[in-house]
Amino acid sequence: MSCQIRTQLTDNKQEFHTSPDISLNIRNMKQLEYSVLARRTNQIKDELKKGVKKSYREVIDVSWGDPHRAGVKPLSFVRQVLAACIYPQLMDGDKLMVDVKQRAQMLLRACPGGSVGKSYAYIQYGRVSEYITRRDGGVPSHPENIYISSGSQWALTNILKVLVNSEASPRTGVLTPVPCHSTTILSLMALGAEVVPYYLREEQGWALDVEELQRAWGSAKEVCNPVGLYVINPGNPAGYVQSRKSMQEVIRFAAEKRLFLLADEVYQDCVFGEETEFVSYKRALAEMGSPLSDTVELASFHTTSKGLMGECGLRAGYVELVNLDPAVMKHIYSLFSADSCAPVLGQFALDVMTNPPQPGDPSYPLYMKVDHFLFLIHRKAFTEFINSLPGFSCQPVEGGAFAFPRVFLPPKAIETAKELGMKPDTFYCMRLLEEAGVLSSPGSEYGQQEGTYHIRFCIMTPSEIMEEILRRLSTFHKRFMNEFS
Amino acid sequence: MSCQIRTQLTDNKQEFHTSPDISLNIRNMKQLEYSVLARRTNQIKDELKKGVKKSYREVIDVSWGDPHRAGVKPLSFVRQVLAACIYPQLMDGDKLMVDVKQRAQMLLRACPGGSVGKSYAYIQYGRVSEYITRRDGGVPSHPENIYISSGSQWALTNILKVLVNSEASPRTGVLTPVPCHSTTILSLMALGAEVVPYYLREEQGWALDVEELQRAWGSAKEVCNPVGLYVINPGNPAGYVQSRKSMQEVIRFAAEKRLFLLADEVYQDCVFGEETEFVSYKRALAEMGSPLSDTVELASFHTTSKGLMGECGLRAGYVELVNLDPAVMKHIYSLFSADSCAPVLGQFALDVMTNPPQPGDPSYPLYMKVDHFLFLIHRKAFTEFINSLPGFSCQPVEGGAFAFPRVFLPPKAIETAKELGMKPDTFYCMRLLEEAGVLSSPGSEYGQQEGTYHIRFCIMTPSEIMEEILRRLSTFHKRFMNEFS
Ligand SMILES: Cc1ncc(COP(=O)(O)O)c(C=O)c1O
Ligand SMILES: Cc1ncc(COP(=O)(O)O)c(C=O)c1O
Repeated sequence: MSCQIRTQLTDNKQEFHTSPDISLNIRNMKQLEYSVLARRTNQIKDELKKGVKKSYREVIDVSWGDPHRAGVKPLSFVRQVLAACIYPQLMDGDKLMVDVKQRAQMLLRACPGGSVGKSYAYIQYGRVSEYITRRDGGVPSHPENIYISSGSQWALTNILKVLVNSEASPRTGVLTPVPCHSTTILSLMALGAEVVPYYLREEQGWALDVEELQRAWGSAKEVCNPVGLYVINPGNPAGYVQSRKSMQEVIRFAAEKRLFLLADEVYQDCVFGEETEFVSYKRALAEMGSPLSDTVELASFHTTSKGLMGECGLRAGYVELVNLDPAVMKHIYSLFSADSCAPVLGQFALDVMTNPPQPGDPSYPLYMKVDHFLFLIHRKAFTEFINSLPGFSCQPVEGGAFAFPRVFLPPKAIETAKELGMKPDTFYCMRLLEEAGVLSSPGSEYGQQEGTYHIRFCIMTPSEIMEEILRRLSTFHKRFMNEFS
Repeated sequence: MSCQIRTQLTDNKQEFHTSPDISLNIRNMKQLEYSVLARRTNQIKDELKKGVKKSYREVIDVSWGDPHRAGVKPLSFVRQVLAACIYPQLMDGDKLMVDVKQRAQMLLRACPGGSVGKSYAYIQYGRVSEYITRRDGGVPSHPENIYISSGSQWALTNILKVLVNSEASPRTGVLTPVPCHSTTILSLMALGAEVVPYYLREEQGWALDVEELQRAWGSAKEVCNPVGLYVINPGNPAGYVQSRKSMQEVIRFAAEKRLFLLADEVYQDCVFGEETEFVSYKRALAEMGSPLSDTVELASFHTTSKGLMGECGLRAGYVELVNLDPAVMKHIYSLFSADSCAPVLGQFALDVMTNPPQPGDPSYPLYMKVDHFLFLIHRKAFTEFINSLPGFSCQPVEGGAFAFPRVFLPPKAIETAKELGMKPDTFYCMRLLEEAGVLSSPGSEYGQQEGTYHIRFCIMTPSEIMEEILRRLSTFHKRFMNEFS
């Protein structure tokens, strides 16, 4: 009874396409189940509470992309602004910085009646589009092309609703990376789309290879009508950041095949590689000039849930649309309008994300004192460390919140897992949880090349926690490999 | 660019069923448009700001069901608890009452990691089901049958997704009251359902008449496959409260025709009539005993947006399901799990709504000092007043947030409206807005018997505002009737 659902996505996507039920309109929904790992974690926590002795005193949960959950502190400026909006009497005293008060007053003024409860929709599209324009070095962004929603996932699902014709035969296909953030796959399946996998090239730092897109498209043509291409940049679960060149290739491919580009850019503020920078698909497209820049249809997604903001609980995100047909825009407008809006406080957080304190503002020094730099260290420390363990191999982490190393499991471990009815990587995660109190998530949740196994770790954690993880992992992994070698 | 959409629902529901588009999966979505009234309101506000002289200094907006918007103050206890959750440092001082701190600590403890940002889902289904059990005089409620969501509308849409087979021929039908809260109609249309109108009996205080249900069902059988019956109790836009007897008739009818009962009970805390009490459909059903109580499928909806809580902006609601097939429950579980959860702060507000401060708690006296009693006075003052105006006739308001009087427009007014391309009731509302600065909403948004006209007023406003509305309305209405008589 929780939304914290982890789904075991099997490699055979066909499995999800159940035949339509006569009385009920439930198609293509895989029955979700609490991951065995989440369930066991709760049991272990209970056992620890009851005093059961283990080699660890608490479970470290790095299975999520939720930075606060992984121990990162919420940003004071954000929290203070929100508290002041919720309970404006707080602004009477002198506890809050002047820029906190100013921001809260500005936000409340924009609400009908001046209270967060007074509005289904406080919307400041203009401020978001200004932010995007700044981000993209001046490429213009228009408020009419932006939709704020209850999290980016929700926006993505809405756009997919327009793209996917659930009644079509052959099905509507969407090219989707492997590995892939699992919720998107669920949304696609729920809408009756054909998930067309294209494999990222692990050995090339999870590069997106156009030849592979070609292959995927070609194979798709036999079973469905591919209309969309979904990309995640920076990646999740793999921590790649696409180069401009790679994006240009993808854009040209999309143009050639007339695919709608869905760019999931929720980790855009998490780019760590020294020579890596985040370039938005919108910017890359604009820079390619006409006719591409006027024709390729693009939706780009962002959220307050990720990055330094990390406010998963507030639920706010947006989508920006580029080059869409005005008739389609009207329908999208309907779709976003008919459902309810993003929660008002989430929208406020979005305002702070897109307009953070500036140098000179009283809250600026604290706002900047974030753990940003820690990640810089972690990603290197983590990959170096994990590559030093026998049987692990990790591509460089350039961005995002995760490392997604490959683990070469001994045949005996794979056999044992199968005897237990578990996927081999889930078995590894289960043992890591059981013996070392570290909750990670298995690659099979995200899709992986047949016969390969991966583990996803959220590396957005404070240093103390990261050190503890490495200690536990090291001891455990060696024992595990010995046991099954 | 806003979710504050008002749709002009025309009386001819067929209009919405456009033929399927080949490339896009947008069916049955009427193109939404900002109501002309909302647009004009914004212009008037601008004019007032610029100093344009009018007979009023500001627009009073009673077109919404949002109590805060209509001038009701948010509850301090709620706001203090939320502020403390958002920014726990607030609990250090002695500004907040001890029960505020205790509640905030309790809520934060239930979040993974103890922070509102740390969780996609803070869920306290047990507390909600205890509340329901108390409300229903002991009829048991089980946490497994409850889903918390981002507002009740969202929960309703999800349940409709399971009920409505958008691919079926004939279409899936849902019996829907006239007049009806407009968002539900939109959801039904978006899902491709056939909206089967049944007319409430205005002259009998908007009673729900089983003969009329029979008629609607009979007529539906020719064009669709009716599977659901949607009821709103207490009503919106009409302020009726169903009697137990009426509910029993409806339940028997649903059982006979094997209809799934969708009970929209979001105004359950707003029942004012002296001899009126709110009885939930769940309770009425349970009291009818076996076999009905074990077989009639029921979904009941509630929300933090309405009533005294009135927190529209936080987005939290729930649905409780009764007598559903376990297989269907599984699918509903998937549906609610795959999408994102209710925002955490909304869930906290839901906790306070279902577990308000109790006598003896320090916050209790203030919590109880709400404007509840005002509504008791208003509804009478308002209906008496409006019935004293020539050409107005208002049924008693027993519950909900609205009065929905019928206005007998002079033929000349109807003609003039038609010349202007407006619905006659929209024309009345427009003139009321223009000349008296009162924003109400026209009956045509909700559906009404052909040839009748109604105006909806939110009457959940503080006394000063209500008095001002009556003053403005009185002067305006007499002038309007004179002009067109
Ligand atoms: C790649 C990606 N896209 C989208 C989301 C969803 O974010 P939101 O909270 O905005 O719905 C996530 C969350 O994990 C993600 O990893
Ligand atoms: C009868 C009725 N049901 C549902 C809703 C939607 O409420 P929520 O804010 O919980 O989605 C409303 C809102 O006006 C309503 O009047």
